[in-house]
Amino acid sequence: MISFENDYLTGAHPAILKRLEETNLTYAPGYGTDAFCDSACAKILAACGLGDEGDVAFIAGGTQTNAVVIASMLKDYEGVVAAQTGHVAVHEAGAIEYTGHKVLTVPGHEGKMYAEELDSYISVFYNDAAHEHMVFPGMVYISHPTEYGTLYTKAELEALSEVCGRYQIPLYLDGARLAYGLAGRGTDVTLEDVARLTDVFYIGGTKCGALIGEAVVFTKGNKPPHFMNAMKKRGALLAKGRLLGIQFDTLFTDGLYSEIGRNGMAATEKLREILSGAGLPYFIDSPTNQQFVVIKDECLSYLKEQDILPEFWEKYDESHTVVRFAACWSTSDEDLDTLKKVLADAPV
Amino acid sequence: MISFENDYLTGAHPAILKRLEETNLTYAPGYGTDAFCDSACAKILAACGLGDEGDVAFIAGGTQTNAVVIASMLKDYEGVVAAQTGHVAVHEAGAIEYTGHKVLTVPGHEGKMYAEELDSYISVFYNDAAHEHMVFPGMVYISHPTEYGTLYTKAELEALSEVCGRYQIPLYLDGARLAYGLAGRGTDVTLEDVARLTDVFYIGGTKCGALIGEAVVFTKGNKPPHFMNAMKKRGALLAKGRLLGIQFDTLFTDGLYSEIGRNGMAATEKLREILSGAGLPYFIDSPTNQQFVVIKDECLSYLKEQDILPEFWEKYDESHTVVRFAACWSTSDEDLDTLKKVLADAPV
Amino acid sequence: MISFENDYLTGAHPAILKRLEETNLTYAPGYGTDAFCDSACAKILAACGLGDEGDVAFIAGGTQTNAVVIASMLKDYEGVVAAQTGHVAVHEAGAIEYTGHKVLTVPGHEGKMYAEELDSYISVFYNDAAHEHMVFPGMVYISHPTEYGTLYTKAELEALSEVCGRYQIPLYLDGARLAYGLAGRGTDVTLEDVARLTDVFYIGGTKCGALIGEAVVFTKGNKPPHFMNAMKKRGALLAKGRLLGIQFDTLFTDGLYSEIGRNGMAATEKLREILSGAGLPYFIDSPTNQQFVVIKDECLSYLKEQDILPEFWEKYDESHTVVRFAACWSTSDEDLDTLKKVLADAPV
Amino acid sequence: MISFENDYLTGAHPAILKRLEETNLTYAPGYGTDAFCDSACAKILAACGLGDEGDVAFIAGGTQTNAVVIASMLKDYEGVVAAQTGHVAVHEAGAIEYTGHKVLTVPGHEGKMYAEELDSYISVFYNDAAHEHMVFPGMVYISHPTEYGTLYTKAELEALSEVCGRYQIPLYLDGARLAYGLAGRGTDVTLEDVARLTDVFYIGGTKCGALIGEAVVFTKGNKPPHFMNAMKKRGALLAKGRLLGIQFDTLFTDGLYSEIGRNGMAATEKLREILSGAGLPYFIDSPTNQQFVVIKDECLSYLKEQDILPEFWEKYDESHTVVRFAACWSTSDEDLDTLKKVLADAPV
Repeated sequence: MISFENDYLTGAHPAILKRLEETNLTYAPGYGTDAFCDSACAKILAACGLGDEGDVAFIAGGTQTNAVVIASMLKDYEGVVAAQTGHVAVHEAGAIEYTGHKVLTVPGHEGKMYAEELDSYISVFYNDAAHEHMVFPGMVYISHPTEYGTLYTKAELEALSEVCGRYQIPLYLDGARLAYGLAGRGTDVTLEDVARLTDVFYIGGTKCGALIGEAVVFTKGNKPPHFMNAMKKRGALLAKGRLLGIQFDTLFTDGLYSEIGRNGMAATEKLREILSGAGLPYFIDSPTNQQFVVIKDECLSYLKEQDILPEFWEKYDESHTVVRFAACWSTSDEDLDTLKKVLADAPV
Repeated sequence: MISFENDYLTGAHPAILKRLEETNLTYAPGYGTDAFCDSACAKILAACGLGDEGDVAFIAGGTQTNAVVIASMLKDYEGVVAAQTGHVAVHEAGAIEYTGHKVLTVPGHEGKMYAEELDSYISVFYNDAAHEHMVFPGMVYISHPTEYGTLYTKAELEALSEVCGRYQIPLYLDGARLAYGLAGRGTDVTLEDVARLTDVFYIGGTKCGALIGEAVVFTKGNKPPHFMNAMKKRGALLAKGRLLGIQFDTLFTDGLYSEIGRNGMAATEKLREILSGAGLPYFIDSPTNQQFVVIKDECLSYLKEQDILPEFWEKYDESHTVVRFAACWSTSDEDLDTLKKVLADAPV
Repeated sequence: MISFENDYLTGAHPAILKRLEETNLTYAPGYGTDAFCDSACAKILAACGLGDEGDVAFIAGGTQTNAVVIASMLKDYEGVVAAQTGHVAVHEAGAIEYTGHKVLTVPGHEGKMYAEELDSYISVFYNDAAHEHMVFPGMVYISHPTEYGTLYTKAELEALSEVCGRYQIPLYLDGARLAYGLAGRGTDVTLEDVARLTDVFYIGGTKCGALIGEAVVFTKGNKPPHFMNAMKKRGALLAKGRLLGIQFDTLFTDGLYSEIGRNGMAATEKLREILSGAGLPYFIDSPTNQQFVVIKDECLSYLKEQDILPEFWEKYDESHTVVRFAACWSTSDEDLDTLKKVLADAPV
Repeated sequence: MISFENDYLTGAHPAILKRLEETNLTYAPGYGTDAFCDSACAKILAACGLGDEGDVAFIAGGTQTNAVVIASMLKDYEGVVAAQTGHVAVHEAGAIEYTGHKVLTVPGHEGKMYAEELDSYISVFYNDAAHEHMVFPGMVYISHPTEYGTLYTKAELEALSEVCGRYQIPLYLDGARLAYGLAGRGTDVTLEDVARLTDVFYIGGTKCGALIGEAVVFTKGNKPPHFMNAMKKRGALLAKGRLLGIQFDTLFTDGLYSEIGRNGMAATEKLREILSGAGLPYFIDSPTNQQFVVIKDECLSYLKEQDILPEFWEKYDESHTVVRFAACWSTSDEDLDTLKKVLADAPV
């Protein structure tokens, strides 16, 4: 079986496993207070171009990270604004609402939020006479890459940042796949840009080479007080915080995180050649590691028979389906070759 | 000052004040366990055509009622489906999300939800491979009259009821203005129909003649166990439950609730004559006590100068505004006459 | 049937009913923004000796008031400290925990919390190396009178206030029965003292002459921003806020609230003469309107047969029970006389 | 530096790291639906003597496990009963309350709850006339070993199980250190006993050889419906569920989990010889891997100077401190030898 369903199908980058082994019997205190976490924090801040105003916290998974960050930064009367297709709005089983806060939505454009629509949403809100009876927009959530693999340009991030700054609400960027975003085709957005233009964001580990783990970066001296307690209260504080510290320390040593992004994108380009070569039309023009194509249902069945698995995304029409092929740091040339051969024989 | 802003601008129907006085020094145990509540419950069930399968609980206000009913009936993994314009989705400050449950939305059509769109929403949900990561539709919320004054037909309620029954999720009807709905122009929906076609609904008191209070009716032997505790836990259990019992006992004695509805609609018809006579176009064709018209901004200013207040609803265009005129049981002929005179001189 | 079970068995003080009638058809905008609420607020602040630093909000019931005040004033990582017997710790169905915050407890001494034990609790907390894994004490809740009818002295309140001030956490006083507390036997605590020594407290209406309603007083310019939204979100914002404004305006006109307290205590003194005269031993020496006596089980049965109802409090031993007799503003001499006669014949 | 502070100071058992490497590039679907998890589940059920009525879920950490299990199994009106010293009652930053449910407490006896006191607590609850205003006892939480290292006997577990069965509420056992408990000195409790006598429990991985992870075992066909959704909603569903599956599959292959327990207890016995040999009195007689001794403050200072770290537990008196020494599977003979030598020179 060869799966292109997603980018969390394999374990960790070998450098991480190696480092876990080397440090296995080294004593480290619990709950993220260890030297590995300290070192990882310092390296991440350096990579982000942040000084003392920056701080980092490590959390096991993405939904948990979103819930802890959003719930601990919103005020009582506030909700978070997301695109209608945002992960927090759709695919997190109501984890944000479970913290007692509403997810407010603006239109999504291939996963992206437009600054002018955000601005309009907020200004209409404050013009509504009944707004004291409504949930205040208190934070903006974007993902980069988005759920559809698309990327914001630097100008778009600047515009969103400007709107948030004007209304004094934090801009939060979900970087579950940030490595591939930073290495995305044609992007002009760097990690320093992300750190400069957002108030808080997370650097995805789970989908970018780690076993598990995400690194939350507070960029403006704005880490909530007693954030360790906020994590514990929400079940997000690992006793063996070292597991996250060691991984991120490795990912941010000698540019490994960037390398993983580039490798993943190199595999993606090969994947795209194969998909394009097979004549499969793209559903969305994605510059990152998730590729969405429209495929005949019989072709999809054929792939499955050959043990090649893309991910079902949605029905396109009566005889076609949108599927996702994801590549990542661990995608092998062998698997790509097999895909190419199978597609050559498939009823495309 | 004469206000047509809404239908909760005055106190209670005189019969209620009279009854409060008569019973003032009668001992009654606390928390809704008194004889007044028992009597009110029996009368309401009779009016609904319900037997032992019915039960009633009294709660002070609408948002509280919605939160208690929805939170205590949803399962852990479920949310409530509402029209995008539904009160619970917009104007309750996130009270439902505060209970940890998401409000899922389907399109609103002048405040109404279409059965076929609801059906499609639920069936698409279950067809989505990722639905275990999403909030399950676990209840349907409708308002009747809606926030735009519109009414469901009996056929529409039957269709919604059928969809809910098919998926085995309760249909909940918010009847904040039910008196005016039941007396609405051209409606074929009776209180018995509401009781038959929904699983739970509430009979609005606050906007229909009571000082405060709403009566929740469980129609299918489905009152959650220890509902008194569910109310207490959410701050909704009044020590002096008698206040609600006495009011609803009065409202359901000698048909007072129906009379209030009819009186409110009689006032509304006079109001409509005045609005139509003045040539103001309707924004929505509402068969109940809320009337929405489009008005020139200078006309609106003129009304305010003359101390006549409709409610700002939304901007229509650069020089016009949508406003709401609400009539109710306490709207006086004098106030309507004044409105007529003022409109005659206004720059319509 | 004559009930001494509690102090919320009857309706409202006649002056309130009269005022409700007089104002019944006066237009008033919704949600506590009306002139009645404004007037009540001004009179309450004056009675408290508060200037611009004071603010008032009106809420329908006590549990709801506690939940809204505590949840909107605590920080994310904080809980509220109460005596083990505090109402929020025992008899509110977990309403505080439902807001996501823990109730921390210190010993109760006939309902009261000792300042030195509070101080010790907080200092031990901060000395605990693991305190980042625990709930921070973020507010102190006391009731006055307590659930056992006891009262703090001014010196005790000053000591609690000093401890809270030292740790910079608000002191919150639940005054569900404040009228009787201020008129309590031998008390040296005035309403001005309460306002000066606490950060927030509520003046109980439900048990002190109102139909329903409590008045929350913020004493130090510390009303949470958008408190109306905090109320709405928790179902505590009445559309007809006038109902609470009119009542508290009446209660704070011409000293009615004080008079109600004095009348209730006068009835209590008569009650105590009767109980003492009958030889019933006190379980607690209560200076306010709740009186706890130990009674033989057969005497209790006899009273019930004669339709005289005290409230079961707890079993004392195999043949005795602790019961509560409560008097209030509406306790009549006739009822007290009947109690006296019945007790004379009872198997005491 | 040599730390005896706790049992989560090192990484994972080498067999786990080895297996992570071997499987690193094997494709596995996400969210715990992979073959590793399936295999681990089957092995755990077999070890527990459970058939189809059993089910297993894997969660990253202990606090998270407690919150997810408790919140998804309690009814709306229920809370969980724990010993006053229970982890959920003290050291989880209010994580249970954050789910909206109260932690009810009964006395703790060196960490243990007595069945008769539990029985009494529940029966008193139901005898209280006001119990509809209180939080219902809806689950019982115990830890085994407890937070003080103590163990229940089989007879004690049977008694607790009997009480819970009588009141039809689930018994939940927190087995964060279950490996050491099952290998504890003189215990008569087996894993099968735990599975038979509880309704749900978790097998601790984090403190017993895993990198992270706990295995929740539902023993009576009582896994809540859509438990994956309950996990996701609370941020507890790892995308790479394989990380937990692989580890538990390894732990339950060839009796590794038992071996880890035995190794940890062998190290503990050596530790005890050293502590006893040095004449340090035990604070509690713990049969498991946590050892609590009373130590002179100057001796504690001396140990720290020599880079030997036990964990501060609490002050004993003015010149003594209670400290915890924890041993585990990774405690080395070298470290124990060093401790012995240092203690020989210490001012004991």
